[in-house]
Amino acid sequence: MDYKDKSNVIVKPNERVDDLHRKNYGIIQNPDKFCFGMDAVLLSGFTRVEKDESALDLGTGNGIIPILLEAKTQGRHFTGLEIQKDMVDMARRSLVMNKQEDKITIVAGDIKEASKLFPKASFDLVTSNPPYMKYNGGIINGSRSKAVARHEILCGLEDLIRESSLLLKQMGRFYIIHRPHRLVEIINLLSKYKLEAKKIRFVHPYLGKQANMVLIESVKGGGANLVVEPPLIVYKEPNVYTDEIYEIYNGD
Amino acid sequence: MDYKDKSNVIVKPNERVDDLHRKNYGIIQNPDKFCFGMDAVLLSGFTRVEKDESALDLGTGNGIIPILLEAKTQGRHFTGLEIQKDMVDMARRSLVMNKQEDKITIVAGDIKEASKLFPKASFDLVTSNPPYMKYNGGIINGSRSKAVARHEILCGLEDLIRESSLLLKQMGRFYIIHRPHRLVEIINLLSKYKLEAKKIRFVHPYLGKQANMVLIESVKGGGANLVVEPPLIVYKEPNVYTDEIYEIYNGD
Repeated sequence: MDYKDKSNVIVKPNERVDDLHRKNYGIIQNPDKFCFGMDAVLLSGFTRVEKDESALDLGTGNGIIPILLEAKTQGRHFTGLEIQKDMVDMARRSLVMNKQEDKITIVAGDIKEASKLFPKASFDLVTSNPPYMKYNGGIINGSRSKAVARHEILCGLEDLIRESSLLLKQMGRFYIIHRPHRLVEIINLLSKYKLEAKKIRFVHPYLGKQANMVLIESVKGGGANLVVEPPLIVYKEPNVYTDEIYEIYNGD
Repeated sequence: MDYKDKSNVIVKPNERVDDLHRKNYGIIQNPDKFCFGMDAVLLSGFTRVEKDESALDLGTGNGIIPILLEAKTQGRHFTGLEIQKDMVDMARRSLVMNKQEDKITIVAGDIKEASKLFPKASFDLVTSNPPYMKYNGGIINGSRSKAVARHEILCGLEDLIRESSLLLKQMGRFYIIHRPHRLVEIINLLSKYKLEAKKIRFVHPYLGKQANMVLIESVKGGGANLVVEPPLIVYKEPNVYTDEIYEIYNGD
């Protein structure tokens, strides 16, 4: 049964409100559909938003990335694009709860057509935490929302990178988190759409382990000169995060 | 004045013989021209040579990479290609000194024309520790040999990658060490010449520092699936190598 939280926002059955430990912000989540993971937190930690910049998040889900970026930066405005109607509704209720409606807009629409929804070359930065897995047309277990968040069912990597490039101003920045096993494809596509990778950071679960995530900053029309940042190590021992992960979770 | 070492090999003025700590092998070096660095050791540590495979090193200098690979593997034969006549001569004298002449051949020639010097699709693996810097035609200080080893005066990255691809058997492996700031260009060129990057390892001077070298294994005609290995950290404190660096130097 629906109930209303302290801000008079409706929280639906199976939904919960999680504390984000930033400015008393919360976020509505539904474990049956989608809950944000560490990747969204790492991407928002990696993303740089300067004062008065405008940011777009493609495939924003429940709005976690614009909500975190608004909390930690002085950006002018944040937009999230999301195709799934129930996620759009959930994200918008979180904005009301946090009183972020003036700073963040959630738009219902398809990434593949993002450059028809917004003016071209109009954003200072674009972020995305896209589905990591290719979709081969096979049967996918679980809820539709989870499947769309994990597999490229509705939108492929090339759609995402093409639209991001079209929407960015010249020298605008594109931030993505993905799996390292697809890095070659990502770099080739970034180059194809004139997004020059400038900063890469690999995330390793432990110091001696292979990377399981990669963060990339690329610049539209930027010159060739890549920096590979120090590795980001998640755990110093089982169940104990490194200091840096704690700092990122605390919004530093 | 020339002198002869214990194997009756001529060592010329300004040359020295360094111990490689492997099978009593030594290497002739001339500090005025070229001495191998940590990058050559890291590349030979990263390179996999299976029993009876044939390997080619492009731009072999004083032969350090084939000499180290012959010492640590059961490869059938090793070839080094080098354009500078004095380096060819120096490398050949090291082979005599180490009694490696049956296993290693040093060929005098130009990387840009390597696929005319050797049969196409004939090597199981190709290695290269090429010059890292683009050459803009400006004045370069120091000796010609050092300049050629550091700057792309005689051969660019695309020449190297194109020729490597031509010389490799299908599913043959290409190993390179380079600077991370050129990684985008390297990956795009590998893709252009059908070399699929399969394994990447970044080298960081200290754990919290940006990478300053990158090791890449790519496979001719391989499928897309990259592994990013654990970071290789060089120093645990100033002047003290990590255990892994000691192991690589000891040939493990």
